[in-house]
Amino acid sequence: MRNFLSLRNLSRGVIEELLEHARHLKRNPHSLDLLNKVVGLVFMNPSLRTLASMQAGISQLGGSSFVIQPGQNSWNLEFEDGAVMDGITVEHVKEAIPVLGKYCDILGIRSFALQHNLAEDLEDRRMGVMAELSPVPFVNLESASDHPCQALADWLTIDECGIGRSEKFVLSWAFHPKPLPFAVPRAALSMAAQRGMEIVIHGPQGYELPDQMMSELQSFGARSVQFETDRRKALNGARVLYCKSWVQHRLYGDPEKEMNARSALRENWCVREKWFEDYAPHAKFMHCLPVRRNVKVEDRVLDNDRSIVIQQSENRLHVQKAVLARLAQEVKA
Amino acid sequence: MRNFLSLRNLSRGVIEELLEHARHLKRNPHSLDLLNKVVGLVFMNPSLRTLASMQAGISQLGGSSFVIQPGQNSWNLEFEDGAVMDGITVEHVKEAIPVLGKYCDILGIRSFALQHNLAEDLEDRRMGVMAELSPVPFVNLESASDHPCQALADWLTIDECGIGRSEKFVLSWAFHPKPLPFAVPRAALSMAAQRGMEIVIHGPQGYELPDQMMSELQSFGARSVQFETDRRKALNGARVLYCKSWVQHRLYGDPEKEMNARSALRENWCVREKWFEDYAPHAKFMHCLPVRRNVKVEDRVLDNDRSIVIQQSENRLHVQKAVLARLAQEVKA
Amino acid sequence: MRNFLSLRNLSRGVIEELLEHARHLKRNPHSLDLLNKVVGLVFMNPSLRTLASMQAGISQLGGSSFVIQPGQNSWNLEFEDGAVMDGITVEHVKEAIPVLGKYCDILGIRSFALQHNLAEDLEDRRMGVMAELSPVPFVNLESASDHPCQALADWLTIDECGIGRSEKFVLSWAFHPKPLPFAVPRAALSMAAQRGMEIVIHGPQGYELPDQMMSELQSFGARSVQFETDRRKALNGARVLYCKSWVQHRLYGDPEKEMNARSALRENWCVREKWFEDYAPHAKFMHCLPVRRNVKVEDRVLDNDRSIVIQQSENRLHVQKAVLARLAQEVKA
Repeated sequence: MRNFLSLRNLSRGVIEELLEHARHLKRNPHSLDLLNKVVGLVFMNPSLRTLASMQAGISQLGGSSFVIQPGQNSWNLEFEDGAVMDGITVEHVKEAIPVLGKYCDILGIRSFALQHNLAEDLEDRRMGVMAELSPVPFVNLESASDHPCQALADWLTIDECGIGRSEKFVLSWAFHPKPLPFAVPRAALSMAAQRGMEIVIHGPQGYELPDQMMSELQSFGARSVQFETDRRKALNGARVLYCKSWVQHRLYGDPEKEMNARSALRENWCVREKWFEDYAPHAKFMHCLPVRRNVKVEDRVLDNDRSIVIQQSENRLHVQKAVLARLAQEVKA
Repeated sequence: MRNFLSLRNLSRGVIEELLEHARHLKRNPHSLDLLNKVVGLVFMNPSLRTLASMQAGISQLGGSSFVIQPGQNSWNLEFEDGAVMDGITVEHVKEAIPVLGKYCDILGIRSFALQHNLAEDLEDRRMGVMAELSPVPFVNLESASDHPCQALADWLTIDECGIGRSEKFVLSWAFHPKPLPFAVPRAALSMAAQRGMEIVIHGPQGYELPDQMMSELQSFGARSVQFETDRRKALNGARVLYCKSWVQHRLYGDPEKEMNARSALRENWCVREKWFEDYAPHAKFMHCLPVRRNVKVEDRVLDNDRSIVIQQSENRLHVQKAVLARLAQEVKA
Repeated sequence: MRNFLSLRNLSRGVIEELLEHARHLKRNPHSLDLLNKVVGLVFMNPSLRTLASMQAGISQLGGSSFVIQPGQNSWNLEFEDGAVMDGITVEHVKEAIPVLGKYCDILGIRSFALQHNLAEDLEDRRMGVMAELSPVPFVNLESASDHPCQALADWLTIDECGIGRSEKFVLSWAFHPKPLPFAVPRAALSMAAQRGMEIVIHGPQGYELPDQMMSELQSFGARSVQFETDRRKALNGARVLYCKSWVQHRLYGDPEKEMNARSALRENWCVREKWFEDYAPHAKFMHCLPVRRNVKVEDRVLDNDRSIVIQQSENRLHVQKAVLARLAQEVKA
């Protein structure tokens, strides 16, 4: 494993090894896997869990880190080939990434979707370009359409809850005051598919996922995949209700129109405890955090035992350490 | 000691032990008290001394740290119970604090007063909420109405200057171009009261402290407490003149009105060397820093031997290390 | 060596020792030269290379660091003697620097030119003031008119390329959409002069360097120094073409007028591969980075083997570690 860009291109065997190591590190947090190693962290977007858990985990593995924040403490980066850089971008990734790679042993980067062009975002072009340019092992800390650290933590969490490999996983759309990208939905769905689960995407009409996202799930091993607007049908028998908001892909790149389209959905698409009581009493509630309380989900759900969001977040630490430890072996090899 | 939220709820015995350990660490800066420990630092407001001294001290104790800055590199946090989070706050402390607690062994947070509601700020509600939510020992890095790291450093500094426990401590108001909260005045006064000092608060009419702040001082052990507008009476015999600005508590939450009220006070309420020459030649000058030179206090005071502001700041490092070392024992226990 | 403020005041012997140690550290990156040492880093301006390479290098030497960013996570600093601080500056360097010096063993500061007053910037007054106030060894991380870490890295890079001590070094002006200061041009030229090189400054009329910068080069040991507008004459026989933009010194402090004056120069002053083909086929291309591609220099140059910009950046790490290791000896002594 040279890079950790996505769960989607990892074999089941590698994923199992990472999960096994994460479970070990959860019981035995300190090691010297990153002794004398520096991990470079680049955040083009805000972070709480990822920044804190990466820095904490690196320390616990005996390593150290630095943090670069383009547009805040550092230069805005350019990604386009042949760009005439007379605007706000001051440095091209063709320089920035090779240079940072000279200062660290592993490089982790967060770079959210621009939401201009759906095909480009689904292709995760920027993350791919940077991984290609990196002279050292590379970790995706959330990209335009993936969030593999979250997906691996979610897998571990679902395992810990004793939820079987082929049980029912529901990804429910929820209202959000801003247009959100496909990174977490795609990562969560791929994870569920790779686990072999029965997948239902629940959302209002118009919020179907792009064809590419639907069709890839079958090939990853999902027991079944369907989009369902009817709440009863969608939730019935679910063991997991994973909540996330995303944009209408047909309105991708037009946030104003998209926001108008969703405004009427606010009341009915805040996840409520009643959803569980009525349709899915045995389902766990999952969310990647941060979550807007009483907009995306009501307090009663989050403050209930069925919510495992804190456990998901804790597991970010353990799985990321397993990933870093494995990449560090790559450095030595 | 599970948390370090305030000096006010610590016994004299615990305070003496912390001061003793701080003196030891001042002579012997390196230890392994934080070996394998991660300290999470959350700054909702700017910092120079606190950020630098915490990170330096943690390193000197063999530990490591991460820094989260909501609104800068991280999400704006919500504090209200039941909030409908459709505005600028993206994550509730009900998630953020438990999650951060999973990534660290000790959590330190800075969160200044909102200055909307005096009672809430004096109650230090936000800091209390966060400490309650924290699964790990918690340090107040300056809150709405307290700054215990500063107070403990000030105590050590006054001790080092050989100033007796019951001598005269004057807190003088000074002009400042912005309305400032009660955090440092309250922390400094509580400290002086717990030392058993004779306390005089010196300020212009209208700048009396809230009743709650005055009355608590007597119960903390102050030899005497009084508000005095007359400079001669206030300063006569003082061994410490501690300078700070604060708002008129009767105009709390109305910064514009408050600023108008104080505009005439600028000239007479910049601390001057002549104050000392005329009334208090043996007084030391103290300030928590940062200080606006020639607005709150003239250069001649700060550049004079009577100023012990750098010593106060240095002692921040030593007392905080003593606090962290003690909390780390709590983690082990 | 108490401070590392400039190459210009270091003897050839000290520079050779630093370069020798940097070459050693490039082969053997880990040491304990900074064991139990804290390095304080203050960035008043953005950074990618400097921040990352300093933090990485400090870790590799067994030390730790903290980062203060005035105006971002910390207070805006005042520099003027006697300033009446009722504006945006909240803390004077007279407090900030001595205080930070209490928390660290070495202090590094970046503070770019204000571009108000040429004489003050060429004198590097702010950096001098801060170094004077620092109780610990001090490193210039780029100042108003110097960038010694870059200069030392460039020296190492030119050595590594086998370019002789007295060969031809061309500093070429290039168009840039913003008015840039003299820090890098001066640092690069001083370095070339101290190496004993034949120096040509190539630029359009009006972009001659201030007399002080020209005259000092001879005294530093340059084989020759001249300003040349003619491209053929300037580049002929060059072994290095170092690209940088700078303002017209006669329009210093008037950025609008300066930008108008340069607008016509854009097309002809983007460094092109043809320059090398026609006039200097054996020249290496150097730049301190970040560089605006296809504005200052075209892709074909940067993507060509003649570009050694990544090597320059990598060498930042190694030379800075040599500097820090030497200053750490100073701390012990």
